[in-house]
Formats: sequence, structure tokens, C-alpha cells
Amino acid sequence: MRGERKIRVTVWNEFRHERNMGHEASKIYPDGIHAVIAAFLADQPDFEVRTATLDEPEHGLTQDVLDATDVLTWWGHTAHAAVEDAVVERIHERIVLGEMGLLVLHSGHFSKIFRKLMGTTCNLKWREANERERLWVVEPGHPIARGLADCFEIPREEMYGERFDIPAPDTLVLLGWFQGGEVFRGGCCFHRGNGRIFYFQPGHETYPVYRQSEVQQVIVNACRWAAPAGATAPVFGKQSPRETL
Amino acid sequence: MRGERKIRVTVWNEFRHERNMGHEASKIYPDGIHAVIAAFLADQPDFEVRTATLDEPEHGLTQDVLDATDVLTWWGHTAHAAVEDAVVERIHERIVLGEMGLLVLHSGHFSKIFRKLMGTTCNLKWREANERERLWVVEPGHPIARGLADCFEIPREEMYGERFDIPAPDTLVLLGWFQGGEVFRGGCCFHRGNGRIFYFQPGHETYPVYRQSEVQQVIVNACRWAAPAGATAPVFGKQSPRETL
Amino acid sequence: MRGERKIRVTVWNEFRHERNMGHEASKIYPDGIHAVIAAFLADQPDFEVRTATLDEPEHGLTQDVLDATDVLTWWGHTAHAAVEDAVVERIHERIVLGEMGLLVLHSGHFSKIFRKLMGTTCNLKWREANERERLWVVEPGHPIARGLADCFEIPREEMYGERFDIPAPDTLVLLGWFQGGEVFRGGCCFHRGNGRIFYFQPGHETYPVYRQSEVQQVIVNACRWAAPAGATAPVFGKQSPRETL
Amino acid sequence: MRGERKIRVTVWNEFRHERNMGHEASKIYPDGIHAVIAAFLADQPDFEVRTATLDEPEHGLTQDVLDATDVLTWWGHTAHAAVEDAVVERIHERIVLGEMGLLVLHSGHFSKIFRKLMGTTCNLKWREANERERLWVVEPGHPIARGLADCFEIPREEMYGERFDIPAPDTLVLLGWFQGGEVFRGGCCFHRGNGRIFYFQPGHETYPVYRQSEVQQVIVNACRWAAPAGATAPVFGKQSPRETL
Repeated sequence: MRGERKIRVTVWNEFRHERNMGHEASKIYPDGIHAVIAAFLADQPDFEVRTATLDEPEHGLTQDVLDATDVLTWWGHTAHAAVEDAVVERIHERIVLGEMGLLVLHSGHFSKIFRKLMGTTCNLKWREANERERLWVVEPGHPIARGLADCFEIPREEMYGERFDIPAPDTLVLLGWFQGGEVFRGGCCFHRGNGRIFYFQPGHETYPVYRQSEVQQVIVNACRWAAPAGATAPVFGKQSPRETL
Repeated sequence: MRGERKIRVTVWNEFRHERNMGHEASKIYPDGIHAVIAAFLADQPDFEVRTATLDEPEHGLTQDVLDATDVLTWWGHTAHAAVEDAVVERIHERIVLGEMGLLVLHSGHFSKIFRKLMGTTCNLKWREANERERLWVVEPGHPIARGLADCFEIPREEMYGERFDIPAPDTLVLLGWFQGGEVFRGGCCFHRGNGRIFYFQPGHETYPVYRQSEVQQVIVNACRWAAPAGATAPVFGKQSPRETL
Repeated sequence: MRGERKIRVTVWNEFRHERNMGHEASKIYPDGIHAVIAAFLADQPDFEVRTATLDEPEHGLTQDVLDATDVLTWWGHTAHAAVEDAVVERIHERIVLGEMGLLVLHSGHFSKIFRKLMGTTCNLKWREANERERLWVVEPGHPIARGLADCFEIPREEMYGERFDIPAPDTLVLLGWFQGGEVFRGGCCFHRGNGRIFYFQPGHETYPVYRQSEVQQVIVNACRWAAPAGATAPVFGKQSPRETL
Repeated sequence: MRGERKIRVTVWNEFRHERNMGHEASKIYPDGIHAVIAAFLADQPDFEVRTATLDEPEHGLTQDVLDATDVLTWWGHTAHAAVEDAVVERIHERIVLGEMGLLVLHSGHFSKIFRKLMGTTCNLKWREANERERLWVVEPGHPIARGLADCFEIPREEMYGERFDIPAPDTLVLLGWFQGGEVFRGGCCFHRGNGRIFYFQPGHETYPVYRQSEVQQVIVNACRWAAPAGATAPVFGKQSPRETL
């Protein structure tokens, strides 16, 4: 049990679209997507929240920051390649050691860290057409579905469609329906090493998706689910026999 | 979050072997296996524990008792057939509704409720030969492994061996090694409906297995894992369209 | 390898709706749903096909018939309760022994045999509204998806929607999109014992769904996938030690 | 169906230990591990076999060779780092496209390609102590178990023990028991993209493990299982709507 200690969440954002005044995202999220996500997370009494962005030194993800992070949320889109491999390795190590969970949001499906964890291309179908999405709860008993009705609508969202090239998720929590005719595994749990990863599809930068209460509920639930809970570090390497040979 | 409310555990036991004075179990567990399990569970500050046994009216599992149970633990061996189908249905319904978790212990693999939940024969290999078992943690990041070292030994246990005819578990947490040469999937998580089920192999009635601290730790962890956590009841049946047709 | 021997498919149908002249199904499938399914299966050079229906003695599923069946396909809707438990047991035994695969079609989700294999309620949402379905291939590398494009449309189908109360399938092959706004896990693989089970959602009796080529392709592929392929019977029961104790 | 065409297997080997005359492997496998594996595979009438080794140009795995390979088997130990990243990318691409299956043998658990596909450290416990292993069939209905009894012994093998840091396999086919007291998930199936991967633990270079018939049977079965079977290439990228928006 975590006991009294709060869940320390670091909200990471590429933060490029929102600083481009000609980009629609600059109107929807003038202070950046991370500011909105951090704000609703900080409303939770058991959360302690900070933010980090791509253009900070070491992308704001120094070893010290990661060592003080229980859950990292990741939003990136246009600059995946700009993320330094050394930082990706640092994140990866902490996840598989079970010291930090990861939430990958929307276009983060193509991030270096998600592709490294999945081992696949993470490719998918997409379309920007102001269309309606409806997310259905496939596993109502899962902690990430807590407090949700059997489905919820997002009035306008970018379409992401199957085939989504990921390994079959350990648990499929949410399925997306799109007005234009596609479906998508929009809420997927994975375990890698001792760490927990949740991929959540909503969140195109030109729509106010992260201001919607159901989307916020899922992210809050997922941070609680992904937070490490005292796993014992595995023992590896050369061993003596347990029995007399 | 369950918040302040305790986890209400009902420890069920067939309680036949222990009342047979010629049976070794009557020496190991003079007050019944359930008494020992209930005692160590009751030591947890967040648990509220009661017991029930086969020869009570309705096997001690009236609707009222089940309605006040968050997690049911099940030990049976010699009298699976004596459990009334109506009680099995009652238990099953509460599990799939997500209102109660289930721990199936040792020879409970052949109980009506476990076979009904699995849909398979639940058959296996076995041998009583005073042999050593060693249980290895396959998923150290899982809540049921909390506080365990990478393995623990049971000095004497009945051998259970593969092929164990169950559907592939949703998570395989523990693997058993037996001195006589077999292996067994000894700690398996399943989800059925909104409910959580854990099968845990140790616990032959002629050895003091439930007096061992690591075994107790697993059962305590599994009760916390299996306890319902506020799932929304699914909506089923006839629906109106969500979109204009 | 099966080698030269053909796959022996028995197409089972409740065959009640189609014999009711006031029912729309009597126009769509005047000789019964089974006649149409058997006909397209019989076009495959490696298949040997027979049919059986509810109102035959022992529902047409005597031990002899089952012993000569590699894959059983199941369509039922209005008379699940009329299927004798003894026949269900007989089918179940042959499946878990790995001697026969099972395809459960459409409203067969509520059949005794499917619920027995799943261990859950198998409940779902539904609506009859002449709406369009589109089935998306989630796992294009799976043998059941062979020869399909990335999706196919069914012009009119009954809606089946999530939450579908099944255990998480071993492989999710197809996902359904419905015009009215729902999604459904419409093509699901399960393993129970040594047997293979495929649930396939399309096939409402008032639409000519089984006359559609893509639907036929899935059923043909699934029969090949579900056919037993020489599994060794598991050894169960009391064992001697493999090692000196 | 593959029809008449043979399964083209390329047997890859690091081939360093065996050329070191002071190394025990040079006595067990004087022509290299690959020579022994290729020989028993070539006995299968439906297989066409070639070999490739680390010290050939491009490690013997040019694009042309890979384009003519249905299944690649991989044995490496001492020189994982010497495998060029470009070749690893080439192998990875062909696997996820579903054009080639992969068998990873023994110490190949630490190869670049396996770690890239898994997304984890792939670490484990080990010991060289001339001990007995017994491999148990967990899923007797799986094609990779075809023709095996319920278990088989390897007289002397390096111990590999849990925790094995891999994602939970899609199917766990074989479990290893070691004389010294450990267990290991020794036969594991994974799907990545459209490709199939099988990890098989036996095969330490100082014991004649690949000369044993049951080990050969598993590898033959696994090559048939992993061979691509006509998957449709997924469609990715920008899409037009399927429905009128």
C-alpha cells in the first residue's frame, strides 16, 4: 500500500503546436496541453503534479525528475524524432523496473518510448474531419472504467482506426466508434517488466478534448492504476542451486 | 475507492476431513481449515472476517451472507457434489455482477463454482508423497506478489502437476516446482463478468500449509486484489439508436 | 497434419423461425439457415458437410454424429432452453478433449453450450433496426482473416453492442461498427481444454447475411482454424514421482 | 494455404563458440549448431533449408536472403552486440509485415531482435551445473506440442529460471522444471504485427541438446506454426470517411 504518500505525476508535452500562433491548438490550449492536464490532475487530493516539455534541457526529464515521478503522461505529435534516445532509455528503464507507470496519449502512439515498449510499428488509420467519437466501456469492472457510464461521446475528434499495429493489449478497456465508419481500440493496458502502461486515444490538439469530464476521469483513473505499488525487484543473473544436485 | 469501509471476507470450508478423528487433518486443523484462514485474515486492520461451512443450512451462504461478502474464499475436497446448485448459482451471479471476488484454494479446483466459471474440466495430475514445493514469482509487479521474495518453499505439499485443464489465466502470478519432477501454474488470475477470481494451489489438508507466513501473505494480497472496487453495472438488452438512422 | 482426410463439419440449426410461415426468416431461408451454410461449406474441396436440427431425435447430435464431426457450427435463438442438457454435455466433452471445434453464430451467444464454455452470462445490447454494420479486421495475420480486405460491410444486420459479457477472448479478430452508434467484438477466438471455439456475431435470421461472400469466407476460415489437428490427450490423475524423493 | 510451396527456413547461428577449439562447443557441434539444426529440418519434406552466420557479409542476412525466408531461427550468445542494427531493422520489418516468422533459441533471449520485439530487458536467472531439465506441455492442443508426450527430459542443460522479464506470452506452450529447483517459461508464443515469434529455451552450446528428438520435434513444429500463411497487408494512413459525415 502506498499509504500516505501522494502519487507524483509528471505531465509531459511536446508543446510545439500550441506555441505556433497560426496553429488552431494555440487557441484551444494557449498555455499548452500539459497545463490543462496538469490542472485537472492537481484537483485530486492524492496527486502531486508537475509538468515537463520537449524544449527544456533534457526535455525536462532529468534523472532527478524521473526519480521523483510515479506516473509519466506523454503527449507528442510533430517532433517524436527530436526526443533524445538517452532520455528514452532512462524512461524505459524506470518503467520496466516498476518504479514508474506511463500514460501514452493520442498521437503519442508514434513516440519512441511507446514503439520501444510495444516492439511493433504502432501504425494506424487516421482522418481529421470534425467527426463524433463514442467510446464504449468493454470492461466495466476495470479500475480505469470507474465512474464511467457504459459509453461517452466526444463531439469532435480526429479519427483513429484499426488495424492498430500493437501487440494484443493485456486488457482492452475502451473501444472507439467513429461517425465516419471506423472502430479503434482506444483504451489499452499493457505490462512491460514490472511497469504498467495505458494507451488512451482521445486528444487531438485542435479540439478541446482534455477539457471534457469523462476524458479527465479516464486519465485520473489510469494514473491511479499505473502508479507503482511496491513491487519487489526481480532477482536476475547467476544462481546457486536451490536443491542438492 | 472503497474508502473507509473494510473488506468483508467470508472464509468457506467443506469442514469434513477435520471432523473425522481418524483423519490426519483433524490433528493439523482441529478447528477446521477455515478457523486458521479466518484468524490470519482477521489480523489485517482493513478486513472483516466471518466463516461458513458445508453442513450449515444453505452451506452458511444465504443470500444475506453473500450480500455482505466482498471476497469469498473456498476450500473443498471430498464433498463437491454435496454443494447445492442453487447456492452455486447465487455465488456465480454475485461474482459476475462484480459484487464479490473469489479465491479458490487447492482442491477447490474441482468445485462446482470453479468449474462453472472456467468452462473446462479443471483436471490435473496429483500425488501425495510428502514432497517439497517451491513457488516462483512470475509477475513480481502484480499486487498478489507484494512482499514476497522471488520464491518461497513449502516443506511438504501434495503435488499438483500440469497439464492443468483451465483456460489460459488472464495473469499467471506464481509457478510451482515440485521435488518429484512436476511444475504447476499455482497462482492464476481470472476475470469473469465484472468479478475477479484467483486460484491458489497450496493447501493440502494433511500439512500445515495455511500456517506458513508466505502462504498467508498471498491470500491476504489476493483478497485485496479480488475485492470489488466500485464497478458500474453494465447495461444490457434492447437499445435505442445513439445516432439517427 | 490432417493429411488426406477431409474436415467433417456438422451444421446445426434450431430451425424454428424458418418453418413459421409468418416469420420473415421463412422467406429469407426457406430451407433453413443450415441449408445455406451447409451449401457454401460443401463447395470447399476439403470439407465434408452434414446438417442437424433441434427437432430431430437427440437434436440430430447423437454420439455417433458427434464422433464423426470435426467442427460443429451452432445457430439458435428462440429455443435455447429446449436443448437437452445431456446433449450439451456430450458436445462439451468432445470440445474440451480436442476432438471437435465449435463455431457459435450470432444469437448462439445465449446457447447453453456457449455459456457453459464461457462461464459468464454472455449478455449484450441489441436492436433490430435495419442498420448497416461494418466489420473491421483487428488481426490481419490471423488465419480467420485470410482473404479479407481491411473491412467489409453488411448492409442490414441486427445491432449487437458492448458490453458483451464474455471472458476476454484469446484473440480478438474482428470488431463490428454499427450505424446506430455501437461497437461489438464480433469475431472472438477462445480455447477451452484442447478445443477451439470461434464466436462470430453476424447472422440475424431476417436478413440474408449468410448469403454474403465475406461472411462465408470467415466461416470457411474459422472451420479450418477450429478443426482439431492431432493433439495428444493430456494425462491426468495420480502419478508416480519422476525424480527419486 | 501455402499449397505446394515449401517452407523456406534460414538457420542463423553466431558460430563463434564452435570455432574456438578450446571451447566445449567445438566438440559437441564441430560444424556449428546451425549445421545440426539445418540437417534435421532438411529431413522434413515440406522444408527448404539454408544457413547463415554472424561473420558472413551482412551476417548472411542480405535483403535477398530474407526475402526468400519464411522462418528465421536464431542462436546467439557471446556476440549479440556485433549484430548490425541495420540487419536487425531489416529482420524486424519482415516479421511485423507478416512475411517471416522467427524462432529464438536459448541464449537468443538477449539478442537485439528479441529485445526489440519484446520491449523489455529479457533478463533471467541462469546456472551451468550439468543438471536435468524436464519440459512439461502446458497446452497439449497447440500445434507446437504436436507429437509430444506430456513431458520430456533433457539430461543436461543450463538452468534458466524465473523471473524471465518478457511480456506475458500470447500462448505459454511449455514449462521447464530444473533439478536445482527452478522453473522457466520455456516455450512461449508471441505475435508482433502480422508475424509470429516462438521463444524456445533449450540449447546450451556445451550439451548435445539439438541432437535430441523431442527438441527437434518442437523446432519442426514451431517452424510450421511460425510460417506466414497469406496475411493481407494492413492498410494504414490517411483515410476517406466510409460514411457520409
